[in-house]
Amino acid sequence: MTTPEAREETVLEAVRKRRELVNEAIPESLPVQQPERLYEASRYLLDAGGKRLRPTILLTVAEALADVDTLTEDYHAFPTLTGSDANGSPPNGSTAEEIDIMDAAVSVEVIQSFTLIHDDIMDDDDLRRGVPAVHREYDLETAILAGDTLYSKAFEIMLEAGADPDRAVDALDVLATTCTKICEGQALDVTFEEREDVTPEEYLKMVEQKTAVLYAAAACLPAILMGADDETIDALYGYGLDIGRAFQIQDDVLDLTVPSEKLGKQRGSDLVENKQTLITVHAREQGVTIEDLIDTTDVDAVTEAEIDDAVARLEEVGSISYANETARELVEQGKARLEVVPDNEARELLFELADYLIERGY
Amino acid sequence: MTTPEAREETVLEAVRKRRELVNEAIPESLPVQQPERLYEASRYLLDAGGKRLRPTILLTVAEALADVDTLTEDYHAFPTLTGSDANGSPPNGSTAEEIDIMDAAVSVEVIQSFTLIHDDIMDDDDLRRGVPAVHREYDLETAILAGDTLYSKAFEIMLEAGADPDRAVDALDVLATTCTKICEGQALDVTFEEREDVTPEEYLKMVEQKTAVLYAAAACLPAILMGADDETIDALYGYGLDIGRAFQIQDDVLDLTVPSEKLGKQRGSDLVENKQTLITVHAREQGVTIEDLIDTTDVDAVTEAEIDDAVARLEEVGSISYANETARELVEQGKARLEVVPDNEARELLFELADYLIERGY
Repeated sequence: MTTPEAREETVLEAVRKRRELVNEAIPESLPVQQPERLYEASRYLLDAGGKRLRPTILLTVAEALADVDTLTEDYHAFPTLTGSDANGSPPNGSTAEEIDIMDAAVSVEVIQSFTLIHDDIMDDDDLRRGVPAVHREYDLETAILAGDTLYSKAFEIMLEAGADPDRAVDALDVLATTCTKICEGQALDVTFEEREDVTPEEYLKMVEQKTAVLYAAAACLPAILMGADDETIDALYGYGLDIGRAFQIQDDVLDLTVPSEKLGKQRGSDLVENKQTLITVHAREQGVTIEDLIDTTDVDAVTEAEIDDAVARLEEVGSISYANETARELVEQGKARLEVVPDNEARELLFELADYLIERGY
Repeated sequence: MTTPEAREETVLEAVRKRRELVNEAIPESLPVQQPERLYEASRYLLDAGGKRLRPTILLTVAEALADVDTLTEDYHAFPTLTGSDANGSPPNGSTAEEIDIMDAAVSVEVIQSFTLIHDDIMDDDDLRRGVPAVHREYDLETAILAGDTLYSKAFEIMLEAGADPDRAVDALDVLATTCTKICEGQALDVTFEEREDVTPEEYLKMVEQKTAVLYAAAACLPAILMGADDETIDALYGYGLDIGRAFQIQDDVLDLTVPSEKLGKQRGSDLVENKQTLITVHAREQGVTIEDLIDTTDVDAVTEAEIDDAVARLEEVGSISYANETARELVEQGKARLEVVPDNEARELLFELADYLIERGY
């Protein structure tokens, strides 16, 4: 068995190599052009960093499907499944034997960046990735416009992948419905703030829409663009949905369990800000509400000791274990879906990426 | 010759009939679903009215290209140009003999509505179409999300038109690049606020990006979706670009020349708010600046008499005639481009629509 530490090392190395290539591709797909301030603002968060988990998943799925050794192919001229039928000739109507799969990866990261810029305005957050949010570094107007620009650019960049028109249409459909669902999830999250009776099921549904659909899109888009069958596309979509939800649950757990200095923000900030998470939603069902644990009316007065006590109480009623178990179940469910994918090194990495999402320390 | 009054009557009747059909189609393409507040906010401006000029142009171009009598075809099952080749059989790879051209019309109106919602936030405007702006009626968060939702919905709705994949891909490409250009135009407009040396050419380029490209998209999208040749697509794009610019220039003229009560807002508001228009940009080249005409430091103190004097001065230096002539030239240039379209009743209406844009009284 691989230890979590060894696995984390493998995954981080795989992510790092792909991240470097994604980082090279972003300025090529999204050069700073006129009007400069708009494009600088659009690039600001993208250039500030990020793990590039979604594009990494996308590129790794592509490698698994093409059944090639990892990192050996040129992502800008990546083999499709077009020529892979029995007689070796392209099926009727299919002409693109190579596509720029990196464009698809960048497109998904650009969508992610657009949602972060607009989310930060909506939540009035000051910081993101250790730098000021775009509406703080620039201004509200520029931040709205930068997000809007990335939105349409993501569609343009996805089209540049050069897939067959029928596949490109399906890919753009997934991209558009994904964006719609992200907006719906964000709106749902807002309505939750005023509700005291959100169930774990409702919370998970919201997370599915707000966060997991973009993982699902990242996982299934290479299958669509490369011409995989519907069973494979659906399975990969499910894999992304499962690990995307697990990712968010793990984020909620880490917020409570990782020391502030390692987390890069106040530990327990979700509790202090009275945000609902799978943990707090579960706790309330056990009769424990945040207000009982922490005085959320005076955010600045909350002490580290109070947070310790709150976490202990959440552990006591089983809410943190419940979150950990739910995330683990989702990851196992997601991994099981990868049966339809060829058994190779890239698929192994997709398993490890799934495990990493809930084993990562921060 | 048709008198302007008779023409306005014809055009208004044609617009009214198509508007009614567009108004029926909007709730079908964009039903209020969960989360309800989000979709209500997304529909708020669409339901508040609007002339529906862009969808009207789109539908009329479709009628002209299909060479059918106006308003006789079902827009939801509209003939393409697929079966129109010599031997009557569909060209290789083309299968959609009918498309839902109304979806394309709604898509363009949805994009327009998204830009208005975000523009009103950026300009912090309180009113739109006689009702509160979305961020006033709802809140900033909901308004940003409503715009974002309409953005992706426009792509989904365009895909529902059911065109052949290669045409659908081209249509989505036009939609995406149009949105990018609108953002660029808006950003350019913002930079103009701080500049004292904008030339008429620069101003027209900004208007092209901010406003005219959506007219261009509306005019060329039916040609793309129906399978017209590149020459026709390009000509229609140019028609839209020309009349879209003329439309904006006429808006600038009307702001100065139409009494406040008819305009529905303060006459001369552009001058009072120190906004650049083709008129003010031209005037400055003649040595007349807004600051010489009106005290823009105290907006509330500006009298009707001051505006009268300012308009008289702008007439004196020829800036209003210059704007009128420029708009007229653009309309004539746009109309000339329609040569490639079959000579029929719908094309006649496209001529009249172009004239109407600069002859309308408000």
